[in-house]
Amino acid sequence: MSTAVRRLMIDKALLGKNEQLAAANRQLFRAKGILALNLVSAPGSGKTALLERTLTDLAEQLRIGVIVGDLATDNDGRRLQHARGGVVQITTGTVCHLDAGMIARAREQVDLEHLDILVIENVGNLVCPAGYDLGEALRVVLLSVTEGEDKPLKYPTLFRTADLVLLTKMDLATAAGFDREAALTNLRLAAPKAAVLEVSARSGQGMAAWYDFLRRAVEHGRA
Amino acid sequence: MSTAVRRLMIDKALLGKNEQLAAANRQLFRAKGILALNLVSAPGSGKTALLERTLTDLAEQLRIGVIVGDLATDNDGRRLQHARGGVVQITTGTVCHLDAGMIARAREQVDLEHLDILVIENVGNLVCPAGYDLGEALRVVLLSVTEGEDKPLKYPTLFRTADLVLLTKMDLATAAGFDREAALTNLRLAAPKAAVLEVSARSGQGMAAWYDFLRRAVEHGRA
Repeated sequence: MSTAVRRLMIDKALLGKNEQLAAANRQLFRAKGILALNLVSAPGSGKTALLERTLTDLAEQLRIGVIVGDLATDNDGRRLQHARGGVVQITTGTVCHLDAGMIARAREQVDLEHLDILVIENVGNLVCPAGYDLGEALRVVLLSVTEGEDKPLKYPTLFRTADLVLLTKMDLATAAGFDREAALTNLRLAAPKAAVLEVSARSGQGMAAWYDFLRRAVEHGRA
Repeated sequence: MSTAVRRLMIDKALLGKNEQLAAANRQLFRAKGILALNLVSAPGSGKTALLERTLTDLAEQLRIGVIVGDLATDNDGRRLQHARGGVVQITTGTVCHLDAGMIARAREQVDLEHLDILVIENVGNLVCPAGYDLGEALRVVLLSVTEGEDKPLKYPTLFRTADLVLLTKMDLATAAGFDREAALTNLRLAAPKAAVLEVSARSGQGMAAWYDFLRRAVEHGRA
C-alpha cells in the first residue's frame, strides 16, 4: 500500500472520529438551547474585531461565551475577556484548524448553563477548517473587502459549507477598490445557500443586521 | 499504535520524500543559475498583484517564470500570462500547500534554459506551506497592512523561515490604522533573520527596493 493511500485511510478514520465528537457537541449545545457558531476566515479578516464589538454591544441582551483557536499566543483570548459567558483560548501548535475533540475538552471550561451563544473562533485559514465539523449550528465565513473578490471561487470547499458570509471591513471598501458586484456574484456561485451581510466592526455599518441575525438564530434554535 | 502516532510516522515519511525532491529541485535551479523564490502569505495579501507589476516593470531586465498554486481556478495564472519566462498553474484540489514533487513536475513545463528568476506563488495559507521546502533559494513571506500587526507572533513557524518579509498594501496603511512600529517589532521577534521591505504594488511605493533586492539576489546566486 502506498503511503498516500495509507494516509488517506487514516485521514478518513480521524474524520470519522471527529464526526462522532461533533455530533456529541451538537447534541449537548442543542439540549442546552445554545446557539453554537463556527467562525472561519483567512488570517486577518477581522474575526476578533467583530467579536470584540459584538460582545460589547450585546452584553445586556445575550450571554455569549467564546472558544478561540490560534497556533500561538493568547492575544485573541485577552482581547475577548469581556465575554460575559467567558473565554477559553486553545493553542493548536502547528495544527491549522480546530477539531471537535478540542471543542469537547474546551467546553468543559465554559459554564453552559446560562449561555445563549457559544462562538468558536477558528484558526485563521481558508482550507483546513473546511472538513472539520465542530458541532456548530451555523458556520459563519468572513471575507474582508481587502482580500480580493475572487476568494470564494479559489476556496470553494469552505465557502460551500457557509451558512452566513460576512463581508467585513466595509469601511475600507472604497480605499481598497472593492468590487462589490463581483464579490456578490462570486458568493452566489460558491456559497449559494449562504446569507450575506456587509459589516464594519470599526464604523458600525451593518452591525445591527448581524445582531438581528444572531437574535433570530437563537430564537429559532429554541423554538 | 494509535492513529495519531501512525499518522505522525507517515507525515514524517512524506516529509522525508519531500526533502529529497526539494534537494533535486534546488540543485537543478542552482546549476542553471536560476533564482527560485517561494512566495507565501495569507489569502489576499497581494502575491499576485505584486507579481503582476513586477513582471511588467522588470520585463526588459530579467526573464522571470512563474509557477502558481491554488486550490481551484486558474485566475492567477491568467493574471500572470505576461511572464516572459512563462506561467504554469497548479490546482491542488483540497491540498493547502505546494510540495516539492508538484514543483518537480511543473518545472518540466518551464523553459529553464534562459531564466533568471523562477517565482513559485504558493497557496494562500500561513500554516501548511511552512513545513514544505520546495527547493527555493529564498522564502518570501508577504504580510499586508490590513491583516493585523500580531500575525507574525500568531504564525511563528512560517515567519521564522522567512528570508524576506514584504509588508504589502502600504497605500492602505493610513486607512487601515496600521501600527508600523508594532508590526516591525513583532517581525524582529518572529522573523529575526528576515529583511523587511515596505511596498505597494498599487502606488509603486517601495517597489524599486524590491527590484534591487531581486537583482542583487540573482547576481549573488551566480557569483
